[in-house]
Amino acid sequence: MKRRKFIAAAGLAAAGAAIARPAVAQAAPAVTWRLASSFPTNFDAIWSGARVLAEAVRQRSDGRFVIETHAPGEIAGAIEVLDAVGEGRAECGHTALNYFWGKEPALVFATGAPFGMNAREQNAFFRAGGGTELINEILADHKVVALPSGTTGCQMGGWFRAEIKSSADLRGMKFRVSGFAAKILRTLGVEPKAMGRGEIAAALGSGALDAAAWVSPADDEKLDLAKVAPNYYYPGWLQPNMAIHLVVNSAKWNELPKAYQEILRSAADTANAETQAKYDAANPAALRRLAEGGAKLRAFPPEVLESFWQATGAVMRETAAGDAKFRRLHDAYMEFRNDQYLWWQVAEYPFDNFMIRQRARG
Amino acid sequence: MKRRKFIAAAGLAAAGAAIARPAVAQAAPAVTWRLASSFPTNFDAIWSGARVLAEAVRQRSDGRFVIETHAPGEIAGAIEVLDAVGEGRAECGHTALNYFWGKEPALVFATGAPFGMNAREQNAFFRAGGGTELINEILADHKVVALPSGTTGCQMGGWFRAEIKSSADLRGMKFRVSGFAAKILRTLGVEPKAMGRGEIAAALGSGALDAAAWVSPADDEKLDLAKVAPNYYYPGWLQPNMAIHLVVNSAKWNELPKAYQEILRSAADTANAETQAKYDAANPAALRRLAEGGAKLRAFPPEVLESFWQATGAVMRETAAGDAKFRRLHDAYMEFRNDQYLWWQVAEYPFDNFMIRQRARG
Repeated sequence: MKRRKFIAAAGLAAAGAAIARPAVAQAAPAVTWRLASSFPTNFDAIWSGARVLAEAVRQRSDGRFVIETHAPGEIAGAIEVLDAVGEGRAECGHTALNYFWGKEPALVFATGAPFGMNAREQNAFFRAGGGTELINEILADHKVVALPSGTTGCQMGGWFRAEIKSSADLRGMKFRVSGFAAKILRTLGVEPKAMGRGEIAAALGSGALDAAAWVSPADDEKLDLAKVAPNYYYPGWLQPNMAIHLVVNSAKWNELPKAYQEILRSAADTANAETQAKYDAANPAALRRLAEGGAKLRAFPPEVLESFWQATGAVMRETAAGDAKFRRLHDAYMEFRNDQYLWWQVAEYPFDNFMIRQRARG
Repeated sequence: MKRRKFIAAAGLAAAGAAIARPAVAQAAPAVTWRLASSFPTNFDAIWSGARVLAEAVRQRSDGRFVIETHAPGEIAGAIEVLDAVGEGRAECGHTALNYFWGKEPALVFATGAPFGMNAREQNAFFRAGGGTELINEILADHKVVALPSGTTGCQMGGWFRAEIKSSADLRGMKFRVSGFAAKILRTLGVEPKAMGRGEIAAALGSGALDAAAWVSPADDEKLDLAKVAPNYYYPGWLQPNMAIHLVVNSAKWNELPKAYQEILRSAADTANAETQAKYDAANPAALRRLAEGGAKLRAFPPEVLESFWQATGAVMRETAAGDAKFRRLHDAYMEFRNDQYLWWQVAEYPFDNFMIRQRARG
């Protein structure tokens, strides 16, 4: 099965084969692991992925394999999880791999690139398109193995104090946005600002920020931004999907009995499905409440969206030119994306189009 | 966790609680089950769901819990799986619950209704919208418990010998289509025909059939219909998603150790994700090959699609008026669907729209 290949690709095959398979009549060993999460407890859907995962592992192992979840700061800061797991300070972690794009730009594609794939397409890339194998080849240098373990679906384009009429309005804009997206927006004259979630509302209120991107309605409504920056833009080109990963220290993965590896893999699958379902179930009502509370839904004007598209392409090409790992993953990702949209435009898209029009008719 | 509730809803909680939890140091018991599948071995993606499921159970239980998969006819015919599992002739089965709509019309919504939800929306309904609980309330009468275990995504609208210019062209049309969709199409003057996959190409060639709906490109290309009925229509309003279920005999479920129940649940999750990813990864190339082989992609004209929509609504209302179980599931399903499209039209849809237009530009 193709997705099993990543173990070999990550150079773990020999070590894995050396692990004795427990005799069937032997009781499964008691194992306790620590999980360092990048997500605070008040992120219901993403954070709950680590809890769902830990609970699934406990139940499926009949309580023999226990994963203790730790919030950011307990073992590692939110953006230090990959390093902490690679160094063995925690056996595993729950994180967005693009947090580490500065060290390893190719990891942008592990989470979801600007103008990348939607959630279902990206799941197909990871699982049946060689994506997880490619990501684990890169992560082998960091001494971790990764399994997809949560998706958000398409996010929103951000909260803006003023309407955006043209790409000229972006120049000098102080925008709370991070990572690879910040690099892209800088080429359009935006001034990206790093800022924790607790400070965003006040900064938008005082004018220290002009705009802020967060997640989607279910998470965004907790930040209470509609009064200070009511223009709520779509589509969420910055993050058409955000894939979360379970990252496991390679040596710890190899020491794990095969059945526990499979239980861990299964728990990642469950968390992946559960997180998306929770977002999908929660977002419609949250969107309604936000609109009732003053949020004004606005589509980016075509010229503005086109400027984002052009800027993204330029930064992608420039990064690919200087980084073979980035280029390899970029090319595989984009080829798969383009193929997916060939089919999507015949199947899902025209169906959704009809349903949305019928809904508007009442 | 909400999805755990279906066990209580299915009236199994008391029985479940009575099962002794194995002592942790005790070896897990050896269990062998038989699975009756509704799908022949040459359906790669759907059929492989049962194999993926069985292999996952074996690995996660360290070989102690074995599920033997059986093709249609070995234990039960394709449309007899629900009865066979309810009667205990097999411990479990892998089937489309809408095959049993004649006995239990509400089960239409367990698989995917005409003009129903797309795959991701339906997964959210099952997992976080109370859908699986509602389905299991209905299945309690049939002595089975069901877990979602495979999706196809949006299918195609069918292969037609002639172009469809208006809904008048549907009258007298001999259309290979089954189930609840056949009931809907009959109200538009279509003559539905039941027919096995092996006979379809010859029947279209001779004019015994005018049209046939099957699945989507990856499955359809094996039927070789492009030469005899080249007009390949979309969108697939008949089946915007097809959800497959693992069905388990209720008494057998209750006898299973809790850890094995969880392993089975996990394997269903894995098969659910794996099946969709395989379809998504395979469909683009299959669509290209079909087009190169003479298939002409055509959108249903708006008036024709509208006639399908009106006929579907009328049959749904009529069925709901005479069947309280159908009505209850219909209302919950449609309310969830309509909410999902509120969010979809802001997030996924505009993003997909932009990406498809950019792809067309090259």
